[in-house]
Amino acid sequence: MSTTTTAARSGAAYTPTERTVPTRARQRASYDRALVHAILDEGYVCHLGFVRDGAPVVLPTLYGRVGERLYVHGSTGSRPLRMAGARSAGPGAGAPGLPVCLTVTHLDGLVLARSAFHHSLNYRSVVVHGTARQVTDPDELRTALDALVDQVVPGRSADSRPANAKELAATAVIRLDLEEVSAKVRTGGPHDDAEDLALPHWAGVVPVAPRTGVPVPSADLDPAVALPGYLTAP
Amino acid sequence: MSTTTTAARSGAAYTPTERTVPTRARQRASYDRALVHAILDEGYVCHLGFVRDGAPVVLPTLYGRVGERLYVHGSTGSRPLRMAGARSAGPGAGAPGLPVCLTVTHLDGLVLARSAFHHSLNYRSVVVHGTARQVTDPDELRTALDALVDQVVPGRSADSRPANAKELAATAVIRLDLEEVSAKVRTGGPHDDAEDLALPHWAGVVPVAPRTGVPVPSADLDPAVALPGYLTAP
Repeated sequence: MSTTTTAARSGAAYTPTERTVPTRARQRASYDRALVHAILDEGYVCHLGFVRDGAPVVLPTLYGRVGERLYVHGSTGSRPLRMAGARSAGPGAGAPGLPVCLTVTHLDGLVLARSAFHHSLNYRSVVVHGTARQVTDPDELRTALDALVDQVVPGRSADSRPANAKELAATAVIRLDLEEVSAKVRTGGPHDDAEDLALPHWAGVVPVAPRTGVPVPSADLDPAVALPGYLTAP
Repeated sequence: MSTTTTAARSGAAYTPTERTVPTRARQRASYDRALVHAILDEGYVCHLGFVRDGAPVVLPTLYGRVGERLYVHGSTGSRPLRMAGARSAGPGAGAPGLPVCLTVTHLDGLVLARSAFHHSLNYRSVVVHGTARQVTDPDELRTALDALVDQVVPGRSADSRPANAKELAATAVIRLDLEEVSAKVRTGGPHDDAEDLALPHWAGVVPVAPRTGVPVPSADLDPAVALPGYLTAP
């Protein structure tokens, strides 16, 4: 499906494909690798799409990135993971895997125009098309689980008990290579028509950003365990 | 596809169906109508999934709710809207429309456990399965556009220039009935295993919530236009 070549993988940009070139607002699309990575690394939740019985399913889930590969995990009993695993284990060379679309979106602002028509949102998003395959190599599984924990808080995997054999057996992880990828970014104010500029309606942008609050320790946390530095930094 | 009856539409809960009952963590699933509405009304961006050439596509987009109906809009040239429109206008009674899955997710917290395995996220999400159909009735189109603007800022549609005929012609809106719907909510702290409670790793929840910043007026805004009250309220 992907037209990405080996050469392109080491370049500064992903190679556009028919389905990563938008039909509209093309000026907002980007294939810049550093931008894509930055958007992915800033997120916590992705929306994973797959097809089940011919119909689309979109589920929110945690993810992690290691280089040019994304990982999504869940119970071995969860639907998309079972589907990817079943297909990967199916007959035929190459382990077909599960076609997915993984999307990460950050909302940056509410765009208020004088005209209802030009109301919009400022955002940064990444859309990844590809085939998810179940991770079976034990070393890759551990690397993926570390990445998933570090996506929640960078560096956290080094300050928690690693998964044991029982937990590894209960966890299914799928991987998705970053090959067919695009970012989309809208910034700036509203684009009102010239004849609307004198209308008496306020126009501009209300910035929106996620804010982390004061950490709440578990009720059963030993009071001797101090809040780690990576949670107190601004 | 939906098994929702007319009676259920006026009830306090959506009727679960095979695809709205999760395969795992069933205790987190809810069909409560008020909860679903509250989660939808608090959001700005939904993730709309559809199938194109047999593969899933997930795109972030603005939406609006009017009662038991969601609206998504875009240019008449955008891909899913063209697909819904083309199918709606296609041969055969009943206007088949475009099968979609629309998901809205709010991240509420980062859940840090002593064990890597039990790291998680607190969130509230709504997943809607159904068939999107293009809105063709002019009155419904205006109602939908108002709802889309009011999703950005409640009440804003009354303080902006309504869409004119040219804009209405350039805007395609699809509707999705709230029939096959579920919410999923995770709250609370980590669920560490008993044998891990004495480990020296901090455990608890880091709350996360979107924060709106100070509104930034457009550079071309008449200084005589004051910031409206609905943007200054806390």
